[in-house]
Amino acid sequence: MAEMELDRPLVRSRRLACWAVEGIGEVLPGQDLAELCREPLIRSGGLQPWDVVLVTHKVISKAAGRTIRLAEIVPGDAAVAIGHRVGQDPRMVEVILRESRAVIRAEPGVLVTETVHGFICANAGVDRSNVGGGEEVTCLPENPDLSAAGLRSAWLDLAEGGPLGVIVTDTFGRPFREGAVNVAIGTSGIPALSDHRGLLDERGYLLHASTIGTADEIAGLGELVMGKLDGIPLAVVRGFSWRGPELGAQALLRPAAQDIFRR
Amino acid sequence: MAEMELDRPLVRSRRLACWAVEGIGEVLPGQDLAELCREPLIRSGGLQPWDVVLVTHKVISKAAGRTIRLAEIVPGDAAVAIGHRVGQDPRMVEVILRESRAVIRAEPGVLVTETVHGFICANAGVDRSNVGGGEEVTCLPENPDLSAAGLRSAWLDLAEGGPLGVIVTDTFGRPFREGAVNVAIGTSGIPALSDHRGLLDERGYLLHASTIGTADEIAGLGELVMGKLDGIPLAVVRGFSWRGPELGAQALLRPAAQDIFRR
Repeated sequence: MAEMELDRPLVRSRRLACWAVEGIGEVLPGQDLAELCREPLIRSGGLQPWDVVLVTHKVISKAAGRTIRLAEIVPGDAAVAIGHRVGQDPRMVEVILRESRAVIRAEPGVLVTETVHGFICANAGVDRSNVGGGEEVTCLPENPDLSAAGLRSAWLDLAEGGPLGVIVTDTFGRPFREGAVNVAIGTSGIPALSDHRGLLDERGYLLHASTIGTADEIAGLGELVMGKLDGIPLAVVRGFSWRGPELGAQALLRPAAQDIFRR
Repeated sequence: MAEMELDRPLVRSRRLACWAVEGIGEVLPGQDLAELCREPLIRSGGLQPWDVVLVTHKVISKAAGRTIRLAEIVPGDAAVAIGHRVGQDPRMVEVILRESRAVIRAEPGVLVTETVHGFICANAGVDRSNVGGGEEVTCLPENPDLSAAGLRSAWLDLAEGGPLGVIVTDTFGRPFREGAVNVAIGTSGIPALSDHRGLLDERGYLLHASTIGTADEIAGLGELVMGKLDGIPLAVVRGFSWRGPELGAQALLRPAAQDIFRR
């Protein structure tokens, strides 16, 4: 039945392989990330048309110069007040507020905001770890969907012209459950969601979980092979096929008015 | 550094393979699920010591007879009132309330509860799809960690004695993000979380996302190969190693008092 609904996004597989792409050194501001990753991608097994490349956002931010020295930041009154409340450096809070359009929760030890992109996460995705030298922080890429599209274009020739998917990932905490998980913050070439709405399962029942955040599930797979301690920013997943409109990771953001947990 | 912290749970990989296990027919009440899956597991490539088997909760519930005919349910006053509010069959709501210890949100079209196990999900995981014949619903397994442990014991010989991990999965919606994703509701043999707390990354910075819900990420991988429309209840993931205390999927539940989204 799903086969006939060509306008629905659908990502599917029966057998997957996924591996970390090693050999990418430290990424510096101004570097061409796509170029930097070409040789490691080829050495790790190359790319095939339906492969998906997972990229941690941090190397995109670093290459794009989205790092800020805290010494250059003068916190405003709101940042000082919130910094006091949550127990964070007010300069860090100032950067977080500049990267945000709403504060969702500000409590001792926790600052959750809605970023300028619409992501809801701790510290607006601003991160002190993994950046060379002293008191620097890294912000999320300005437009992760666009970053994914740029990398995809640059790597298409490695994948015989594609379709090729690229997913930019970050690690987000979540309500109710312990443990952060990787999610997709930018996608290109592959739909961010699979939509089974209105479809029946093999017994003729309406599917209850009818929209699946497949790009988030694929992002999680990336976390599993890249690890946290080893600074590996890239992974390849092989074995999917997909169809339907591309959407972009913005499609993974639930509008506030439709979110029962934002009332 | 992580290598020296043997008491921390840690799941790691550099290269994974994952495949759906086909050929498992409809599961009926009273059947021995572990036995039913043995031949399909062997035919799909067998098991190796460090494999992880993913099992959708529904086949466990079906084999355990956790299905209820709605015709036999007389809804109480609370179920009638909530059913009216959310727009659901009050008999279905009665089952959901029996499976729950708290109602988290009850709004038109949405009933989110905290199940007797502590999971926060829509309809307490009670599901009308995928069950043979008429007006039946399926509840979550009574103790998914125990179900995982039972299946693991039964399959250990296929995996040369293990360690072998088993993860029982369900598909949950989540706040803020569109698209449901698979999560772990029961685990055995493999830690549910990876704990990097206090560890430094390769640049010497404290990791910001320091506890990772690895079992949830692995569960998501299962969704990707099992699909939603084809009734495939089992998948195998190969390529992990792990260490540390086993915990169980209960470790993935954030205590209400520590959850800023439950205040």
